[in-house]
Amino acid sequence: MNVPVVAAFDVGGSSIKAALLDAAGSRIAALRRAVPAAAQGVVSAVAVADEIADMAREMSTASGLRPVAAGAVVPGIVDEEAGIARFAANLGWRDVPFAAMLRDRLGVPVAFGHDVSAGGLAEWRLGAARGYRDVAVVPVGTGIAAALLLDGRPYRAGGHAGELGHVDIGHGLPCGCGAVGCLEVVASAGGIARRYGERAGVAATGAAEVLRAAEAGDTIAAEIVRDATEGLGKGLRVLATLVAPEVVVLGGGLFEAGSVLLDPVGRWLSANLPFQRVPRLVLAELGAEAGCLGAGLMALEVAGR
Amino acid sequence: MNVPVVAAFDVGGSSIKAALLDAAGSRIAALRRAVPAAAQGVVSAVAVADEIADMAREMSTASGLRPVAAGAVVPGIVDEEAGIARFAANLGWRDVPFAAMLRDRLGVPVAFGHDVSAGGLAEWRLGAARGYRDVAVVPVGTGIAAALLLDGRPYRAGGHAGELGHVDIGHGLPCGCGAVGCLEVVASAGGIARRYGERAGVAATGAAEVLRAAEAGDTIAAEIVRDATEGLGKGLRVLATLVAPEVVVLGGGLFEAGSVLLDPVGRWLSANLPFQRVPRLVLAELGAEAGCLGAGLMALEVAGR
Repeated sequence: MNVPVVAAFDVGGSSIKAALLDAAGSRIAALRRAVPAAAQGVVSAVAVADEIADMAREMSTASGLRPVAAGAVVPGIVDEEAGIARFAANLGWRDVPFAAMLRDRLGVPVAFGHDVSAGGLAEWRLGAARGYRDVAVVPVGTGIAAALLLDGRPYRAGGHAGELGHVDIGHGLPCGCGAVGCLEVVASAGGIARRYGERAGVAATGAAEVLRAAEAGDTIAAEIVRDATEGLGKGLRVLATLVAPEVVVLGGGLFEAGSVLLDPVGRWLSANLPFQRVPRLVLAELGAEAGCLGAGLMALEVAGR
Repeated sequence: MNVPVVAAFDVGGSSIKAALLDAAGSRIAALRRAVPAAAQGVVSAVAVADEIADMAREMSTASGLRPVAAGAVVPGIVDEEAGIARFAANLGWRDVPFAAMLRDRLGVPVAFGHDVSAGGLAEWRLGAARGYRDVAVVPVGTGIAAALLLDGRPYRAGGHAGELGHVDIGHGLPCGCGAVGCLEVVASAGGIARRYGERAGVAATGAAEVLRAAEAGDTIAAEIVRDATEGLGKGLRVLATLVAPEVVVLGGGLFEAGSVLLDPVGRWLSANLPFQRVPRLVLAELGAEAGCLGAGLMALEVAGR
């Protein structure tokens, strides 16, 4: 009997995660390799596609199972319908027809998508947002984005929806995007660590260290954590006012570090939504595997299950 | 041959608009009456339902046509699935099962909804947003709200979505909702007129007068119009960042007064969206009839056409 499996690939800034999943979304095999080196800020899309094809072969050989479809996700702005990576800053990609490149190499139908969006799909179908109709899944890491699942299906707006990290929350500081006041400047894990380094004159290894320092009484750290907490509250307030999700799943580096910010953000939000639907705040369940699992769920859809 | 028509009712703060529509959404008859008087801020829901039943009878008698279904819309927070008006400030309603009340009186299936949402549906199906998949229809009148049509269908979030007027744009002024910084304080037609009255010490008849005064060189009016323009830009910037509509339809009193704000708001927006999808800004086409037409479209859906 033929076991129907799909292959899933999550291309990040530094590593490619791969997995074989069965029809229930359970992992049968997993593999991880470094992303091919960039030259002048650009990672060769051909090299990434070749690497993925090689990983697929290795997983098939090891398991004796041949995937009937594949799913792949990348960061940035992705046109899922066209199968094109419009823009991925940390790969240096612009308008890369990656779905077709993978189809040529893998010889099976390929679903192609956005990593945050795919991670949201996974949290909704297999993780913390199971059973809800209106959902925002918000990974807080280097940046901040929201995967939106509205009225029981993913909402993408051609790859443009859910840029929560670039909502202006009024702090007036410049953001790498060119605007000022963006949420992710003060509330992303990257922003928290960077601001602490600038203010304290001592580099922090990451946001988790700043959170610990704040708890230990470091006043600079405490102020930066307060800015992040209030910032997340303000960002989620905007989301609640416009999109009104029933539940917000918080994940990424900042919330994997522990749930220390979950309660204060929730309190800020409840106190500042006079009439809006107050979303339930919950922690992500799938961690760093969410994107790869989501790619697998997209592949299962393409495979018609 | 039986001509299939539906009845549509738009209950506002001061008047009830009624119409008979054919299957193409064209008006066959129309009628308008005052809303029954309020007692201590509450309008009797029974009196409104009786009035609507009477209007339906009058239109049927005059046209010789009997509607096969009806649609009714009210302002506030509406649970469309349950057929209940959860909260309507200017009618004084809380948890009114209005759909059932109308079904009892009219003897036909009744669709019940929210006026802004219905107006958005009408602009999308019959008006300025025809042919788009991701749409925001934004009436700017006493307040500001957005009807969202995402991925080709209305998005409601149980009546909570699209409260654009209560996005914090950072001006710090208090809003009637209990929060500060809400867009509609400075950018609604009502807000513009009220702020001019407060600052100039002379009451304005409405936002149109303030716009005219600004053009004529009144510096107080010019400042208030500038605040409104930038406020609308900031509000639409948040909408573009989170929801990324392809098109924003601007309507309501402020934009019926003329398109004088459309270009400056569009310029502000284009200059302040470094990477987001920049929505097309267009004027509403259906004016004050949009809500009633939308109620009719909802009735046609209930009638199965």
